[in-house]
Amino acid sequence: MSQQQFSSSLLEDAIHQFAKLPGIGRKTALRLVLHLLKESEEEVENFGNSIIRLRKEILYCKICHNISDSDICDICSNLSRDRSVVCVVENIKDVITIENTQQFRGLYHVLGGIISPMDGVGPKDLEIDSLLQRVENDGIKEVILALSTTMEGDTTNFYLYRKLEPFHVKITTLARGVSIGDELEYADEITLGRSIQNRIEFSQTFNK
Amino acid sequence: MSQQQFSSSLLEDAIHQFAKLPGIGRKTALRLVLHLLKESEEEVENFGNSIIRLRKEILYCKICHNISDSDICDICSNLSRDRSVVCVVENIKDVITIENTQQFRGLYHVLGGIISPMDGVGPKDLEIDSLLQRVENDGIKEVILALSTTMEGDTTNFYLYRKLEPFHVKITTLARGVSIGDELEYADEITLGRSIQNRIEFSQTFNK
Repeated sequence: MSQQQFSSSLLEDAIHQFAKLPGIGRKTALRLVLHLLKESEEEVENFGNSIIRLRKEILYCKICHNISDSDICDICSNLSRDRSVVCVVENIKDVITIENTQQFRGLYHVLGGIISPMDGVGPKDLEIDSLLQRVENDGIKEVILALSTTMEGDTTNFYLYRKLEPFHVKITTLARGVSIGDELEYADEITLGRSIQNRIEFSQTFNK
Repeated sequence: MSQQQFSSSLLEDAIHQFAKLPGIGRKTALRLVLHLLKESEEEVENFGNSIIRLRKEILYCKICHNISDSDICDICSNLSRDRSVVCVVENIKDVITIENTQQFRGLYHVLGGIISPMDGVGPKDLEIDSLLQRVENDGIKEVILALSTTMEGDTTNFYLYRKLEPFHVKITTLARGVSIGDELEYADEITLGRSIQNRIEFSQTFNK
């Protein structure tokens, strides 16, 4: 149903807009649009305006570059968080993912991507200088590198490690291993191999 | 991730709005919203406005009740279509589905639902009177009942049949049978049983 014409150009336009979103084809777009037609005018107006306002008014935190309603995000301005630990992530989504674990009470630093020569992304395109400045000036004691476990992630990790070394801060990275709840036979060999190399004292698993 | 707070209320709001759409959960909503943040301000404004405009400005065809940009839809105003045949469907989506087959060149009549006592939908809630008026006044020779093959669909078909009988028009319904491309063993027994009862001359299958 790629080039079909609907009986209404308004409908056609709305479907076209929805179908541009990732993972949404024209059939799903049609379903969503017909759903909106059944909603009240006010509801639909709120929907449209929330998207427009988001894009227009959204700010990025001046410290960590996370998404924010103000110059400094809620995490950076939260005084109850541990300001000596910074977790370096690729993007905003990773901040949300880590926040959802409720296991981290430090601050973040959003790089805005990872070094990827194939995509033309070099260190200069990322928020690396601002990270180094934070480490130099803000009394940071530990930097956690929480990037993807891909080749690009490893490259970026290594680059950051070299840049951070002179500041004599503790540099850590996420533990890699078999996922909790996974059956061993489905774990991939590289992960399993690393898990064996980096095996931990069984008693450590008690204090969850 | 049901009750979680994001670092931005604008973000939270946009995610909340997307997650109200059918089949879209909070995780997908987040993905869509983050995608929009990467688009240009103009693109996002077009998206939001296309939704708002659709809901505000959409009209329904005064003849067939299909969605339309004007009082009379493109199908009803298209003089090259066969004005003596009317295909009765439940909703706008069915018009689009049938149009996509490119096998029908007549007009439509959108009922706006089917008779369903369980959901409190009676004949008075549907565009039945306007259908009878069209049949009486517009020189219609055949009415095709193209409703769902459910109990409610059958009830509505029968109700319409009784109402249309006095007008002495030809009343037809969609052929039921085994889907093209289906293996027999996966066809349900009722459909297959009907297919055997209503078997057709093999020579009819030639003129596709």
